[in-house]
Amino acid sequence: MKSHLSIQKGGEKLPETINRSFKRKKRQALSVEDFVEAILNGDRIVLSQAITLVESNKAEHQTKAQQIVNACLPHSGKSIRVGITGTPGVGKSTFVESMGQHVTSLGRQLAVLAIDPTSQISHGSILGDKTRMENLSNNPNAFIRPSAAGESLGGVARKTRETIILCEAAGYDVIFVETVGVGQSEVAVHSMVDFFLLLLLPGGGDELQGIKRGVVEMADMIAINKADGDNLAKAKESRKAYRNGLHMFPPKNSNWTATAMTCSALKNTGIKEIWQTIQQYEQFTKKNDYFEDNRQHQAQYWLNETIRNELKARFETHNEVKNHFQTIQSRVQNGEITPFIGAERLMELFLKK
Amino acid sequence: MKSHLSIQKGGEKLPETINRSFKRKKRQALSVEDFVEAILNGDRIVLSQAITLVESNKAEHQTKAQQIVNACLPHSGKSIRVGITGTPGVGKSTFVESMGQHVTSLGRQLAVLAIDPTSQISHGSILGDKTRMENLSNNPNAFIRPSAAGESLGGVARKTRETIILCEAAGYDVIFVETVGVGQSEVAVHSMVDFFLLLLLPGGGDELQGIKRGVVEMADMIAINKADGDNLAKAKESRKAYRNGLHMFPPKNSNWTATAMTCSALKNTGIKEIWQTIQQYEQFTKKNDYFEDNRQHQAQYWLNETIRNELKARFETHNEVKNHFQTIQSRVQNGEITPFIGAERLMELFLKK
Repeated sequence: MKSHLSIQKGGEKLPETINRSFKRKKRQALSVEDFVEAILNGDRIVLSQAITLVESNKAEHQTKAQQIVNACLPHSGKSIRVGITGTPGVGKSTFVESMGQHVTSLGRQLAVLAIDPTSQISHGSILGDKTRMENLSNNPNAFIRPSAAGESLGGVARKTRETIILCEAAGYDVIFVETVGVGQSEVAVHSMVDFFLLLLLPGGGDELQGIKRGVVEMADMIAINKADGDNLAKAKESRKAYRNGLHMFPPKNSNWTATAMTCSALKNTGIKEIWQTIQQYEQFTKKNDYFEDNRQHQAQYWLNETIRNELKARFETHNEVKNHFQTIQSRVQNGEITPFIGAERLMELFLKK
Repeated sequence: MKSHLSIQKGGEKLPETINRSFKRKKRQALSVEDFVEAILNGDRIVLSQAITLVESNKAEHQTKAQQIVNACLPHSGKSIRVGITGTPGVGKSTFVESMGQHVTSLGRQLAVLAIDPTSQISHGSILGDKTRMENLSNNPNAFIRPSAAGESLGGVARKTRETIILCEAAGYDVIFVETVGVGQSEVAVHSMVDFFLLLLLPGGGDELQGIKRGVVEMADMIAINKADGDNLAKAKESRKAYRNGLHMFPPKNSNWTATAMTCSALKNTGIKEIWQTIQQYEQFTKKNDYFEDNRQHQAQYWLNETIRNELKARFETHNEVKNHFQTIQSRVQNGEITPFIGAERLMELFLKK
């Protein structure tokens, strides 16, 4: 019972078409067991509804969402998770479209998710514009879900990670997590995927202007997109330069040597080769046990991250702390008190009660 | 009243020579005002005693230390702080010795500190072996202080940062903070210095084996040491490769372009040029206001870091949390519960009381 309609905004209302076909099965009416059963059967409308619950900030939605995600957890994990990043203009949507058509043509089931904390303003622009992936969004073997809007990075990251679990339980065995290469979001994405792909434009390094420091070192592959027409020679030069450059980096924990490749998402060249390399990576890291180890480390990382974020949130919303933070911060910045004395005073306020 | 004896282990007892000459002025007898006055007069024995107070974990020492550091704070800051890192074998001690002799010959006052959380075992091996810097340790314009031993990174970092303040108040206008390039300590050092120098050996990238990912991107300069004799040609090749490689990185917030240079600390070549470049950096970043902005950001960073560490410490030492952490962590790693549910349960335990 798969629908072609796979794009859906993160809001409360379902699109008309879904409402019509689903009159009998309103979301509130579905039990946790109903949700889980339908998800495991690959029902993408119920999957969408479950993701909407995950994205909701209402307490009762959250409780239900947590139960659904936890029940799906044992059925998740059987996928390759690929993070894709690159600055706007690099052709990320076209790349995802082209790569998505390729992997589904090989019989794989693809879910495309996005992390975009900047979408607070644009309300999910990163994948929200359906027309940018026209073929893929009409592909019955692809499920596209825009980023939850109006959220902090921590919130979006958590929801994306839970959405991965739901998608995997629904049978999607290739997960793309897309992000813009300009913020902290790459670290979050890197911590939830198996393979991290950085898209760049042909050129001599200037295209890194928008890429945050550290992102290059996280990449398992640099793909130089738009390697076509007049750009082809420049792209090949860039590839050579990046290959040399990547050798300068310390080896990865995976023992995988990051590489640089060229492609043209528009002309559909190089896409097959990039996917082959991703599969080689999967085989390589499964053989040396990094694949599973890394996923365990990631679970550990998210446990620690969530604790850290929660502690921070409780501290920052504490009334006494809020009342004194600005003053103490200014005094620290002006060199009137050391950061350690400043922190001590705030901790005293926090733990006083 | 400067003494030649400048090396001192972090322990409680002062060396015999100091005890003899300081019988009348025992540490406990000095008031906070005594300490501050002597430090501002450049008294290196009292400076050493104050650092020992900073390094002490006893509550009454800490209270006094905080008062001294805070009183010195307005007199600190007038220095260039240089972080120096590199794996063991790169010739770090020889480099510091050679560079130290050079900067003091120019009339500067140098303090050499170390961050080495691994010294829990070796008890301060990084700078503890006085014979490794024979000339510098007998140099009246240099003050060498080994790392506080037996401490967590957070503890050592905090104490080093406070030691910087004391040294600056005592008139040292060049601060070297040395660390081994193998752990998280580089991030800590990078967050307390103005200029970050990475020492490497000549070679094709293999020497990065021991360097943690991310350290290369933090460097304002890569200095290829041991560029002498048979190594010279290889060192020049490496310099070229690194210069090209460094261009691949995104630009720094300082707008400074990281560069690669060669030197031989043993033969005393290239040292002068490296110091000149560090001075160019200082001028450049003072002109574009990055120097001061960065120091304010660093103070902010240490405020946040200290709060973060404190919250973490309180959480981890909480009895209920301690009793359940292992079980919950295992369940998260084995995919039985999501990291978010695991974190929630622990937070409930922490905040219950």
